[in-house]
Amino acid sequence: MARYRIDVEYDGTPYSGWQRQANQHTVQAAIEQAIRKFCGEEITLKAAGRTDAGVHATGQVSHFDLSKDWAANTVGNAINAHLALADERVAILNCTQVGEEFDSRFSAKARHYLYRIINRRAPIAIERGRAWHISRALDVDAMHEASQRLLGTHDFTTFRAAQCQAKSPVKTLDRLDVSRDGVVIEVRASARSFLHNQVRSLVGSLVKVGDGSWNADDLVAALEAKKRSACGPVAPADGLYLIQVDY
Amino acid sequence: MARYRIDVEYDGTPYSGWQRQANQHTVQAAIEQAIRKFCGEEITLKAAGRTDAGVHATGQVSHFDLSKDWAANTVGNAINAHLALADERVAILNCTQVGEEFDSRFSAKARHYLYRIINRRAPIAIERGRAWHISRALDVDAMHEASQRLLGTHDFTTFRAAQCQAKSPVKTLDRLDVSRDGVVIEVRASARSFLHNQVRSLVGSLVKVGDGSWNADDLVAALEAKKRSACGPVAPADGLYLIQVDY
Repeated sequence: MARYRIDVEYDGTPYSGWQRQANQHTVQAAIEQAIRKFCGEEITLKAAGRTDAGVHATGQVSHFDLSKDWAANTVGNAINAHLALADERVAILNCTQVGEEFDSRFSAKARHYLYRIINRRAPIAIERGRAWHISRALDVDAMHEASQRLLGTHDFTTFRAAQCQAKSPVKTLDRLDVSRDGVVIEVRASARSFLHNQVRSLVGSLVKVGDGSWNADDLVAALEAKKRSACGPVAPADGLYLIQVDY
Repeated sequence: MARYRIDVEYDGTPYSGWQRQANQHTVQAAIEQAIRKFCGEEITLKAAGRTDAGVHATGQVSHFDLSKDWAANTVGNAINAHLALADERVAILNCTQVGEEFDSRFSAKARHYLYRIINRRAPIAIERGRAWHISRALDVDAMHEASQRLLGTHDFTTFRAAQCQAKSPVKTLDRLDVSRDGVVIEVRASARSFLHNQVRSLVGSLVKVGDGSWNADDLVAALEAKKRSACGPVAPADGLYLIQVDY
């Protein structure tokens, strides 16, 4: 038996998220099918982040075991070849053989997400599906200042999807930075792990600070309310990217 | 009568280029139809760059006349609304009223193009259709150094499409810079005007320098040969963006 780690990029737009589901086109199923076509083995991928429908990745990490011990390069190239034949929007950036103690989900020490907003009056043409278009002016300095008050260990119930399966709503947020480069606003969030929809919920609430409907105290009050109804509107999937996982 | 200038962004992927053609989906036809739906007027757009099929723009400039004198904001918003209804990948970034001496094509003093290459082994997932994927290693310093020898006024017959309609193959190339940021290589080209396929022809030949099949002298020899057959392979449309027009 050999265990392989794959680093994966995907355009989430045509997929019903990472996780395999009956009668849905998912990233996991696309890669599992490419592996089956390559070597005939029926495997089940594990991954660092079970990204939702429409969410992208430039640094998803996944792993799987094959009964035959192939060279890692052969495996990576073969998966890419079969993904291309199936016209999938998924690419294996790197494939390495790892020890059986490596688990892409449970060994992860930190997950890094990027959320992209295009903040301009004109609609999005080129980046449609890959950023959140907001036409009203956003105050990025106010967003960044407020975001710093969410760092650390908190009960993030407010910023957690109803269907979240995590045992505890307590998470430690290590980074939540907001910056602007022209019309592009980037929110960067890092934590050991996140609750379901946590980044999109945080971004949606930060946008309320950015457009002036909330101030930083309102954001903290939302956190402290510990109830889903206190959250701002959840940001759309389009702007979210899983960019890096640390082990 | 009122003349309007529009600054336009588009994802060239689904279009048979800028210019209206029978039975083809083009950017020009999409905008003309949006204008017709908004005000009923049948107009013909002029533009700074008649980009080819698959070529993108973040700064195309076009103009047209309407018999009724609308507020420019109204015109821009109405075109965007009708483009969105038709699910076009085109957005009006800015609409201003201009004097009748303004001509988006003939008043242009400089046109600026960007060509994007993704230089990595792994296929492209997210940026598919919006960059040229080259897996072999490219020497960007060699490309940049060689590119400088093409600056100035030359007969660019080598780098001109067979179907080019320009009267003269002599053009003045003001900028041709090659730079790298991680796996992304950018080529930036500026001139008062370009021949048909000139930027893509130049990029294709620079890539021959980058992968070592040509040196800078070979590139100059290709220019001096003044024949199309001396050109390297023409770079695909995917990576090309019309980014700015100066007046």
